[in-house]
Order: sequence, then C-alpha cells, then structure tokens
Amino acid sequence: MNTFLDHQNWRYATKKFDAAKKITTEDLNTLKEAIRLSSSSYGLQPYKVIIVENPELRAQLQSAAYGQTQVVDASHLIIFANELNFGEEGINNFSKNMSETRGIPLESLQGYVDYMKSNITGLPEETRNIWTSKQTYLALGNLLNAAAELKIDVTPMEGFVPAKVNEILGLDKLGLNASLLATIGYRHDEDATQYYKKVRKSNEELFITL
Amino acid sequence: MNTFLDHQNWRYATKKFDAAKKITTEDLNTLKEAIRLSSSSYGLQPYKVIIVENPELRAQLQSAAYGQTQVVDASHLIIFANELNFGEEGINNFSKNMSETRGIPLESLQGYVDYMKSNITGLPEETRNIWTSKQTYLALGNLLNAAAELKIDVTPMEGFVPAKVNEILGLDKLGLNASLLATIGYRHDEDATQYYKKVRKSNEELFITL
Repeated sequence: MNTFLDHQNWRYATKKFDAAKKITTEDLNTLKEAIRLSSSSYGLQPYKVIIVENPELRAQLQSAAYGQTQVVDASHLIIFANELNFGEEGINNFSKNMSETRGIPLESLQGYVDYMKSNITGLPEETRNIWTSKQTYLALGNLLNAAAELKIDVTPMEGFVPAKVNEILGLDKLGLNASLLATIGYRHDEDATQYYKKVRKSNEELFITL
Repeated sequence: MNTFLDHQNWRYATKKFDAAKKITTEDLNTLKEAIRLSSSSYGLQPYKVIIVENPELRAQLQSAAYGQTQVVDASHLIIFANELNFGEEGINNFSKNMSETRGIPLESLQGYVDYMKSNITGLPEETRNIWTSKQTYLALGNLLNAAAELKIDVTPMEGFVPAKVNEILGLDKLGLNASLLATIGYRHDEDATQYYKKVRKSNEELFITL
C-alpha cells in the first residue's frame, strides 16, 4: 500500500501533459470532493473553484499565463479564485450552512458569528483579500495530494496575470480574483523533467527544534 | 484501504488534545518528511518550520495565541515561519542545492536563476513577504494530510499575534515571521467537537464549470 510520502515522491510539476488523456468523471468528482473538504480559516472557504474545459477559453487563458502549454494540453484547468471584500454576507452564509448541517438553531450560533465578524469585518479590505487568497493554497494542497493518490498529475501555477484571467472569466463582476491556477491531467512520456530528482531543503536547513 | 477522502472526513480541528499522548519519533519524522516534500513556488521553500517541545516556551506562546489550550496540551507545536525580504541569497541557495541534487553544473542553471531573480527580486518587500507566507499554507496542507493518514490530529491556527510569537522565539533576528501555527497530537475523548458534522459548501456553491 502506498503512503502519503510515496505519493509525494511520485508527483512533480508536470511541464508537458499528454493532451490525449482525459480525467474520468469519477476521478474528477473525487478531486472536487478533496477540494471541497479542504480546511480553511474558520471553515469559511472564502473562494470559488472554476473548472475550465472549454477549449476556446483555455486558449485565451493561455495568453494570460505566459503561453504555458499546460493550460491547453492538460485534461482540465482549475482556477482558485479568492473572494474579494469578504465580510458579513460570507459569514452569514456560513452560519446558515452550519445551522442546517448540524441541526442547531441559528440563534445559538450568534456568539460565534459575532466573534467571527468582530475578527474579520474590521480588517482593511486588502488584508482580507490577502487572507482569502491564502486559503486557496490549502485547497490547492488538497488537490495536489488527492491527485497524487490517483496518479493524476497537477502543475500548480502562480505564473499568470491575475487581471487578465479575471477579465477573460469576468471574475471581477463576481467579486472574485484569480489566486492560483492548476492544470491537471497525465504527464507526457516526453516530459523529461519527470525523471529529475526532487530538489528540497535538507532537514537541517528547514527545521528548527526548540 | 482508506483513501485521501476517508482521511479528510476523519480529521477535524481538534479543540482539546489528550496531553498524555505523545507522537512517536517515527511518526514525527514522517510528518517532517511530508512537510519537507511540500510544493512551493519554484520549489524555493521560502520558510522555516519550528517544532516546539519545550514546555516553558509553549506556555509563553500560549499567551501569544489568545490562551488556546491546544498550544500547551498538544504533543507538539509547529510554527511555519515565512522568510522576510526573500531575494538573491535564497535563490542562490536553491540553485546550489539543485546543482548538487541533480549533478548539473551551476553555470548551466544560470538562465533559470536569472529568470527567478528577475521575477522575484524586483517585487516590493511587502509583496514578497505575502508570497512567502502563502507558501506556508501549502506546507500546512501537507502536514494536515499526512497526519490524517497516521490518525494524528492537527489544529491549524491563524489566531495568534505574530509580533508576539516573533519576539518570544527571536524570529525577527532570523529574518522570519510567524505565518501559521499548528498543534499536533491526539484528540481528547472529551472533545465533543469530534462528533460534529463537517460544515462545507455544497458543490453548487463552490464550483463553477466552464
């Protein structure tokens, strides 16, 4: 049985995808569920996850991602878009969901709701936007790890122009911002980078024990 | 065999740890390796990971984390500290590591090194600090997921005063900033929250398919 560490050692940031190989609906659903179950600050999940299959959109988005071929060659393109100006509405939706999921009257959650609001809504908008963007990295982590278990390749990307992606997908109008891209699919046989040794800091460089 | 999704459904943000149960050295080493193998922007891993066992330090840090009991009751406290003012030195260290790991002459990496430097070093310091902080969320994701496979509980925490944690641990002097805390160990039988249903957005709320 393969473990988390085996999967980590198997994965790499794929440079060239096999455009002929598509992820099955079943596997895509598993990946979506892994993303959906991600941890986030207070459990608020202050983002949307956009799955782009449409080839014309993918071609446009490639130009917003410095022409990286994975954007069009991968089976699917996923965009993690953080919510902008997150505030009362998002917290109210969350508490409504918590009330329904756990069968608790909304009134009994009021203390927790007030606590979240007092911590969040007073922050400057830019601070809240950075904070919602950070949460997308946890969701990406779940995608990376769930995909590796299924032997599905993922290339995470910060190398794109958010303003262009936002414009192409109309994210601004939805109060969203492209925080991260991830292309998912299957590595091409010709991608030589799959054979490169993983470069990581040593334990001595990375960890401090106190 | 349990899958990634099973582990996700098992885990929760533990409110009360069993202070008597300690993580074994073997399991701690597995968690460290999971963190060490995390993805990061360009693979740069622009952070340090501080593992705090010392009870006196833990007690001090509890006061910097609004008195949360997990900070002292959990088996270990982990602090993800992002590098401040990340720049040439970090990139040079990375390229040296890549050269040694893959047996490639440093000169042949110069183009990639210059590319990274041109993308990173010109950014305002604040932007680079946010970017290094974001990478710690991917490392936290690996910790969460690897721990769940081992049935080890993790409570991630953003609820602390970074300046206080930095002062207690002397992180400023090391060019570091406390980005995230995570307490790891074993849930207490008396922690009722372990039985609560997980609250997550529905697929319809979270995903957009184009």
